[in-house]
Amino acid sequence: MGTLREDALELHRSNMGKLEVHSKVPVRDSRDLSLAYSPGVAEPCLDIEKDNDLAYAYTNKGNFVAVVSNGTAVLGLGNIGAQASMPVMEGKSVLFKTFAGVDAFPICLNTEDIDKIVETVKLLEPTFGGINLEDISAPACFEIEERLKKEMNIPVFHDDQHGTAIVVMAGMINALKVTGKRLDNIRVVTNGAGAAGVAIIKLLLSMGVKDVIMCDTKGTIYKGRPVGMNKSKDAISEVTNRQKLAGTLADALVGADVFIGVSAANTVTPEMVKSMAADPIIFAMANPIPEIMPELAKEAGAKVIGTGRSDFPNQVNNVSAFPGIFRGALDVRATQINEEMKVAAAYAIANLVSDEERTSDYVIPKAFDPRVAPAVAAAVAKAAMDSGVARITVEPEEIAKKVWAVRPT
Amino acid sequence: MGTLREDALELHRSNMGKLEVHSKVPVRDSRDLSLAYSPGVAEPCLDIEKDNDLAYAYTNKGNFVAVVSNGTAVLGLGNIGAQASMPVMEGKSVLFKTFAGVDAFPICLNTEDIDKIVETVKLLEPTFGGINLEDISAPACFEIEERLKKEMNIPVFHDDQHGTAIVVMAGMINALKVTGKRLDNIRVVTNGAGAAGVAIIKLLLSMGVKDVIMCDTKGTIYKGRPVGMNKSKDAISEVTNRQKLAGTLADALVGADVFIGVSAANTVTPEMVKSMAADPIIFAMANPIPEIMPELAKEAGAKVIGTGRSDFPNQVNNVSAFPGIFRGALDVRATQINEEMKVAAAYAIANLVSDEERTSDYVIPKAFDPRVAPAVAAAVAKAAMDSGVARITVEPEEIAKKVWAVRPT
Repeated sequence: MGTLREDALELHRSNMGKLEVHSKVPVRDSRDLSLAYSPGVAEPCLDIEKDNDLAYAYTNKGNFVAVVSNGTAVLGLGNIGAQASMPVMEGKSVLFKTFAGVDAFPICLNTEDIDKIVETVKLLEPTFGGINLEDISAPACFEIEERLKKEMNIPVFHDDQHGTAIVVMAGMINALKVTGKRLDNIRVVTNGAGAAGVAIIKLLLSMGVKDVIMCDTKGTIYKGRPVGMNKSKDAISEVTNRQKLAGTLADALVGADVFIGVSAANTVTPEMVKSMAADPIIFAMANPIPEIMPELAKEAGAKVIGTGRSDFPNQVNNVSAFPGIFRGALDVRATQINEEMKVAAAYAIANLVSDEERTSDYVIPKAFDPRVAPAVAAAVAKAAMDSGVARITVEPEEIAKKVWAVRPT
Repeated sequence: MGTLREDALELHRSNMGKLEVHSKVPVRDSRDLSLAYSPGVAEPCLDIEKDNDLAYAYTNKGNFVAVVSNGTAVLGLGNIGAQASMPVMEGKSVLFKTFAGVDAFPICLNTEDIDKIVETVKLLEPTFGGINLEDISAPACFEIEERLKKEMNIPVFHDDQHGTAIVVMAGMINALKVTGKRLDNIRVVTNGAGAAGVAIIKLLLSMGVKDVIMCDTKGTIYKGRPVGMNKSKDAISEVTNRQKLAGTLADALVGADVFIGVSAANTVTPEMVKSMAADPIIFAMANPIPEIMPELAKEAGAKVIGTGRSDFPNQVNNVSAFPGIFRGALDVRATQINEEMKVAAAYAIANLVSDEERTSDYVIPKAFDPRVAPAVAAAVAKAAMDSGVARITVEPEEIAKKVWAVRPT
C-alpha cells in the first residue's frame, strides 16, 4: 500500500477510469442481431413512438441517471473545470451502481452558462430516468436545479445540496434523542450559504424546526441586511431569523442548541461552543478540516459531534443518501424528489440506529452499513407514493429486497 | 421461438433495455471508497486540471463514444422522435461493445434544431473520446457533422453516411476484381441523395473513381439543375457528372458499370440493368425492399449483386465498419476520422476475401466474421498515423490483438 495519492492514481491509471458500458444481451449470430438491432429493434421503437412511457419497459431509461457537472465546485478543489471533474463523476456513478444498482453515467459539460446547462440537460431527457446534479457552484446550482425541476418530467436532485442535508438531518434526529431535545423547540445555527447550506435550512424547516439562523462570512443573515445578499439569501431571510438578529456567528451561537457548519476550517472556537445551550450538538462538515476539531468541541462541552470525515465518529457521508433515494424514486417513476421524500430518507437513515445502540458517538449508521440503501429506497418510494408524485405503485419491501440483492459483499 | 416482433419485444422487456453501466473498481470498504471517491479522487482531478490529456489515462474518456440521435431518420421508420429511437441507440451501443470493446452510450436529444444539437454535443466533449451520429435526417446531418468536425477535438462520424459507404466500397473493390474492371475507368451511377448517398460519392472519388453520376427523385444531378437542388447537391454537382448529363436514372444507367442505390424499393427495372455495360455490378440497399430484387437483377444480367439484407449474398452491414473504425481511431487518439481512414477501412474489409474465395456471391465478408473488426481497427489506426491525425503511436497489430480478445465467442 502506497500513499493515498500513489494508490489513487494507480487505481485510476491501471483501470483507465472506473466505468464501462455493458451489454445485457448477447449478439452471437444473425438471429441475436436481428432482435437486438435491425430489423427487430423497430418493434419496441414503434411501440414507444405510440406511448413514450414504454421506454421504461423496453429501454434502460428507467435505470439511467445522468451525473451532471460543469466542474465549478468539485470536492474542496473549487473550479477545476469539466474535464478535470470526470474522475469524481465516474466515482459518483460507481457509488450509484455499487450501493443501489443504479446505472449512472457522467455528463461533464464544458460551460458555466446557466442557460446552456439547463438547455442541454433538458435535451437529454429521452435517455435518462433521473438527473443528479453534482459539484456545480452556488448560486448557479440553485437556478439550474429549480429550472430543471420545473421543466423536466423526471426527478432532478442536486446531491451537494440535498444529500448532505438529508444525512445531517438523520444525525440530528438521533442527536436530539441523545440530548433529550425536540425539533420544535430548538435553535439551530448554520454557517455557510453554499449549496448544502441552503438545502439544510429548507429541510430543517420541512422537519418542523422553528428557530433557525443562517450565517455566512458576513455574519447572520436577516431580512434587509444591507450587504452580501442574493436571491437565495433573500428567500432564506424570509423564513429564518424572525427576530432579525444582526451580528456575528459567535453572537448567533449564544444559547443555540445545534450548530451545523458547511463553511470553512476553524470558524468555530471553543468559546463559541461554551456559549451555546446545554448539551450542544455540533455538525462541523468543512472538508478536510472541520469548523472545529471534534476533540476541541468535546472539551468545550459539545455533547454530539459529527463531521464529514471517516476518521471521527458520526461521519456525514452522502453515500448514505443518494443511491437509495434515486433507487426509490426511479422504481416508482417519481416525477420529482420532493421534501416529503427527503424527510423520509432522513428518518429512514436515523431509524437504523436502535435505541440501545444510540450514543453520542453513534447517531449516524456507517457508510457501509448494508441496511442503509434498502431502507432509504423503500422509505423514499413510499413517500413518493404517499405524496402523489409516483407514477406507478410498487411494494416498498420489494424495492428494499432488490437493493439488498445488488449490495457489495 | 416466436415471431420476430414477439421475440424482439420479449428481449427488450425481459432485460429492461439492453445496456447497463458497470464499475471497473470495487468499493467494499473505506479504503476502496477513499481511492475511488473522496478524498483520493482529488489526485487524478488535480493532475487532469494541469493537463487535460491525462483524462485519457485516468478516466474512461478514451473509450467512451456517444451515440447521438434525435430520432428523425430511424432505420426505415422515419421521424419517430428521440424517445422512440432509444432502442436503436442502445442496440448500436451493444454492437460497439460486442464487436470492438468500445463503451458507447446513447445520447438521445429531444430537438430538431441544428444549432442546439451542435451546441449540446460540443458541451459533452469532456465525457467522450468520440461522437457517433446516428439516424439524423438529411440535410441536417451534413451540417451537424461538418460543424462538429470543425469545432471538436475528438473524432465525429455519422455512421449512416460513412459506415454504409465504407462497406459498399469494400464490396465494390471485390466486385471489380470479379468482373475484371478497374476503379479509374468505370462509370458509377448512384441513386439517393440522403445521408449515405452523399458519403458514397465522396468515398468513390477518394478511391479514384473518375466518372460518377448521382441521381435523386428528380433524375440526374448536374451543375445548375433548376429544380430540387440544395447545398450538398450543389457541392456534389461540382465534382460529378462532368458532362452534365440531364435525364432520368434510366438514362444515366445506360452503359454504366456500377449501380449503387440508397433510395427506395423497386426504382430499378430489369430493362435498366440490361442497358448497363457488360457484367454490371448492383448494390441495391433500400430497406427492407431493395431497388431491384436480386433474382430479377441476376436474370437481367447483373454479375454481382449486394443488398442490405442478411437473407441474400453480399450483405452491406455497417457492423463491419463502425466498431473497428472507432477502435482504431480511439486507440491512437485520432482527432478525426478522415478520408484516408475510411478508404483504409474499405480495403481492410475487402482484403479479408481471398483471391480463392472471391466469387459473385462473396465480395463482402460476413457480418460475424471475427477477422473484420480487428483488421479494420488496425488499418484505421495505421491510416490515422500515416495521415498525421493520430495523437499517439500504437502498433496496429497490438490494436488488432486487443479486438480479438473482446470478440464474442
